[in-house]
Amino acid sequence: MNSLAQTIAHIEALDKGWQEKAHQHLGALTMPYWALGRLLDLAQDLAGMTRSLQPPVGRKAVVTMAADHGVCAEGISKYPQEVTEQMVLNFVAGGAGINALAGQCGALVVIVDMGVAADLTASAGEEKILHHRIAAGTANIARGPAMSQDQAIASLEAGIAIAKDLGAATDVFGTGDMGIGNTTPSAAIVAAVTGVPAEKVTGPGTGIDDKQLAHKIKVVDQALAINQPDPLSGLDVLSKIGGFEIGGIAGLILGAAAQHKPVLIDGFISGAGALIAQLLCPAATDYMIASHRSAEYGHQAMLDKLGKQALLDLDLRLGEGTGAALAMNLVDAAVRVLTEVSTFEQADVSKAHA
Amino acid sequence: MNSLAQTIAHIEALDKGWQEKAHQHLGALTMPYWALGRLLDLAQDLAGMTRSLQPPVGRKAVVTMAADHGVCAEGISKYPQEVTEQMVLNFVAGGAGINALAGQCGALVVIVDMGVAADLTASAGEEKILHHRIAAGTANIARGPAMSQDQAIASLEAGIAIAKDLGAATDVFGTGDMGIGNTTPSAAIVAAVTGVPAEKVTGPGTGIDDKQLAHKIKVVDQALAINQPDPLSGLDVLSKIGGFEIGGIAGLILGAAAQHKPVLIDGFISGAGALIAQLLCPAATDYMIASHRSAEYGHQAMLDKLGKQALLDLDLRLGEGTGAALAMNLVDAAVRVLTEVSTFEQADVSKAHA
Repeated sequence: MNSLAQTIAHIEALDKGWQEKAHQHLGALTMPYWALGRLLDLAQDLAGMTRSLQPPVGRKAVVTMAADHGVCAEGISKYPQEVTEQMVLNFVAGGAGINALAGQCGALVVIVDMGVAADLTASAGEEKILHHRIAAGTANIARGPAMSQDQAIASLEAGIAIAKDLGAATDVFGTGDMGIGNTTPSAAIVAAVTGVPAEKVTGPGTGIDDKQLAHKIKVVDQALAINQPDPLSGLDVLSKIGGFEIGGIAGLILGAAAQHKPVLIDGFISGAGALIAQLLCPAATDYMIASHRSAEYGHQAMLDKLGKQALLDLDLRLGEGTGAALAMNLVDAAVRVLTEVSTFEQADVSKAHA
Repeated sequence: MNSLAQTIAHIEALDKGWQEKAHQHLGALTMPYWALGRLLDLAQDLAGMTRSLQPPVGRKAVVTMAADHGVCAEGISKYPQEVTEQMVLNFVAGGAGINALAGQCGALVVIVDMGVAADLTASAGEEKILHHRIAAGTANIARGPAMSQDQAIASLEAGIAIAKDLGAATDVFGTGDMGIGNTTPSAAIVAAVTGVPAEKVTGPGTGIDDKQLAHKIKVVDQALAINQPDPLSGLDVLSKIGGFEIGGIAGLILGAAAQHKPVLIDGFISGAGALIAQLLCPAATDYMIASHRSAEYGHQAMLDKLGKQALLDLDLRLGEGTGAALAMNLVDAAVRVLTEVSTFEQADVSKAHA
């Protein structure tokens, strides 16, 4: 069940019957009808995903996928490529944003090398890294395809395998990324998949200025012009203008969906992975929870295409899975409401006037 | 230090020096500059409130203030007044929304009778209720003042006393309310204080229909016309068109501010209390954190007047302190980032290109 085709074949839409059971129960709780708004929507969806009125959500894992990008040669990022490796070591040492926020919500941080340029197999703490390195970074998408179709499939299947391996001890997944330059392929993906022009979905990433942004938009346009990705094929989009961590994220989502497990989608790069997963298997979208709306310009276009409304909107633009970790608290809260709040009948509280 | 005047005299603005120290530190963390956006703003503010780069936030209490409202005689609510008492008993039994959400974030729920119409002193579990009952509900604001000035002061001082008593074991406060009919005085308060017409700030509360809403707007207008509250006097506004729980909430905020402790403001009714606290002592506003944007129409006008942007926007309209409890996770998260994330120097990560 690790192959891409088998996994996709195994993914079912969420269960409307369980959603409806949850809806009935939530509507009878001791509060004005649906007074906890989107928290109740979330509780209802979790019931539909997990086929349960007591959705298991206690065991959480944020999977942070790291890889490098050949397009860095075009000078599209403010940071040198070596920062990808350095930040992976920072994750391993527990010193990054995702470590702090996963700690807050009680999630495990799972660090994956999907294709970092540097060799991490001899690094201090390498045993804390899952090694699924496809290659030493993608090729430069401004000059040709990012990767071969075989590499694209391998990146997806790595994500699927990780979801399967973690699944025995994980109720809720979160996606995360690290990769200097990866807002560029992500912008290319959202432009390709939605048809929104590159200039509308390409943003400042880690903080480039207006002149650098104008250059980055040209690079995205060039990547689209040279590669001509098929907007209806997740595999074509991924291989031509993707990244190894983006493929890993897409695979993780498919793997979670195949297990009926919710997966919190982080920000812009995770959104690109989610678009690939949606193209490969529209039903997988049912298991995605949009954790937050990123400050990166193109994120809203992604959310629109996914048909999701983000839970949080806090001007985050870090990635790593930080937004997913923050939103895990809301998943816990939604399940608490579903499972702990009394109904009018149970608590002997008078109902509204007819 | 329990008196209103002494407490107000004791409240200082937050410390800009500590805010700046936090800003410097947060700007040096291993992430693109300010990439965790509003979470970093919050961390910086918490440092300024608590005068510390390690703001204590572990011990949390949501204080849920309950009271009844004479204006229910005008037929402005969908629920009978007895629900106030019934819901207090539901809080005591642990079966309400606030119990579930406070449990999720690790907060204590402190239930206060500020003026419930029913006598709660002989109820099952009454020992779990703080008894500060000013009277058996307010008078009908559509016919005259809600309460005397002495009662208004007593409600504020009850809140101050509770903040002081809890203070020894509480780092972060949250406000909450229960009181059938209390969106009506809250709408009157925001209209009086901001000058925005009643029709713009009066909402459906627990879920009345359009015809009932038109009537409710008339009742709010009548309360304003009959009472003529002075929009610059917190005490005049509270006594003429307030509620006992609204006074208690305002007092709790003042008491928290006097101790340099952050206080998460819940939704629409807590916002009315926050407006009273702001009128009484503008510096107290520095210690308020707007937890969420309520679905109730007038809440945005309150947030604007308070000068606050809400952390969450999830269509909540329950009250009880539920939004405050949800946002306590973000307070924890902000402090985790401030205290746990490595700087570029500590982690030996390369900085951005100049």
